Amino acid sequence: MSGKLYLIPTHISGHPGDQLPPATVECIYNLQFFIAERAKTARRFLKEIDHPLPMSEITVFEIPKKQNYRYLEEDLNHLKKGHHMGLLSEAGSPGIADPGAEIVRKAYEMSIGVVPLSGPSSLTLAVMASGLNGQKFSFHGYLSPKKEIIGKDLKKLERAAEKDRGCHFFIETPYRNMQVLEAAVLNLKPSTLFSIQCDLLSKNSYSMTRSIAEWKKSAKPGLHKRPTVFLIQSGG
Amino acid sequence: MSGKLYLIPTHISGHPGDQLPPATVECIYNLQFFIAERAKTARRFLKEIDHPLPMSEITVFEIPKKQNYRYLEEDLNHLKKGHHMGLLSEAGSPGIADPGAEIVRKAYEMSIGVVPLSGPSSLTLAVMASGLNGQKFSFHGYLSPKKEIIGKDLKKLERAAEKDRGCHFFIETPYRNMQVLEAAVLNLKPSTLFSIQCDLLSKNSYSMTRSIAEWKKSAKPGLHKRPTVFLIQSGG
Repeated sequence: MSGKLYLIPTHISGHPGDQLPPATVECIYNLQFFIAERAKTARRFLKEIDHPLPMSEITVFEIPKKQNYRYLEEDLNHLKKGHHMGLLSEAGSPGIADPGAEIVRKAYEMSIGVVPLSGPSSLTLAVMASGLNGQKFSFHGYLSPKKEIIGKDLKKLERAAEKDRGCHFFIETPYRNMQVLEAAVLNLKPSTLFSIQCDLLSKNSYSMTRSIAEWKKSAKPGLHKRPTVFLIQSGG
Repeated sequence: MSGKLYLIPTHISGHPGDQLPPATVECIYNLQFFIAERAKTARRFLKEIDHPLPMSEITVFEIPKKQNYRYLEEDLNHLKKGHHMGLLSEAGSPGIADPGAEIVRKAYEMSIGVVPLSGPSSLTLAVMASGLNGQKFSFHGYLSPKKEIIGKDLKKLERAAEKDRGCHFFIETPYRNMQVLEAAVLNLKPSTLFSIQCDLLSKNSYSMTRSIAEWKKSAKPGLHKRPTVFLIQSGG
């Protein structure tokens, strides 16, 4: 009988043991084979949660930068032999704003059982803490990498939000966060709701939802290089 | 100084202590005032996680069915007096496919700090386990309550998925799950990817992603009355 592919979230700040539920940790303790973006961070994580096996008995396969399906199939063959495997994310939940989705799809093709485990996700936390529409929301990944069109990108999301009355959210490479905030205040309508969810689950976390008119009048938080989720909703 | 509003997820299957991270449980232990949909389930949850205070010293405010903002403000005044409060969901993460968003928005208006805590979310788990696009996804809440238009609703989501290449997902009242599956097989294109994520985190969890052409040939899982998330992506 085939093993199962367990999808394992990791901590997004602080110590992993504090942020993972006991059921998730117990499940990881039973695994010996892992797939991860970087073996080094994966092994550090396994040590930090006190994995009972010595590291020499643990195998970590690295996801190649360019998806190589033949390679994937070879790794997943360990599952066919009856071993369980864990797909580890670098931070947060695997497959969500993170590689790993192709591996899951391949597992289904190979008739391998897939089991997701619970853990932190900055996107989920951000939608919760925004107070915006949790019945209808769209995640857009990263904005365009071209600095000069951040404003255009934001207006596009604003129009989408006006049309479907949902919450639209995105992330940015953290050193561009302040540019996003400036562009939002400059380009979005005064009534549009704009939420900043920064460094969630850390001691310095910052959560705030205001209309653009209010952001104009307020002191701006320092977001430079701090992991942040931005959310938009029509206030009209 | 004002207290903070903590957003508290609860378990979606099994025992809450297994599914909540230690940092979340520790935070709940320090709270004495809660807001919840139903005081009875909230109190049961607090007992199950062994809240150190006797239940007689814990206050649970119920969210009125029809949002009553004056009422909300009165409850949130406890925060103004310096008490911390916890907003508890019935299952999963508060404010996500769940009431609570209005309370969070009100807290921001009253300049009360909002702190989201990590815990299970069936929607996040479903996106992870679908293997579908985790860089671009849209949650649509419930389909139309009219049975005869489930097929139309599904085609609308399929068109949206073709247009933006993202993953589109929704939930249904659990007794209509089998109707959704039948309508999907009947109405969607053979190449469209359709994912079923059922009873996540339970021992009987079921996760599967296939094209509609493959679903046509496959035995259908029994989803009746089991909490399920459905996900669609264009396979073209």
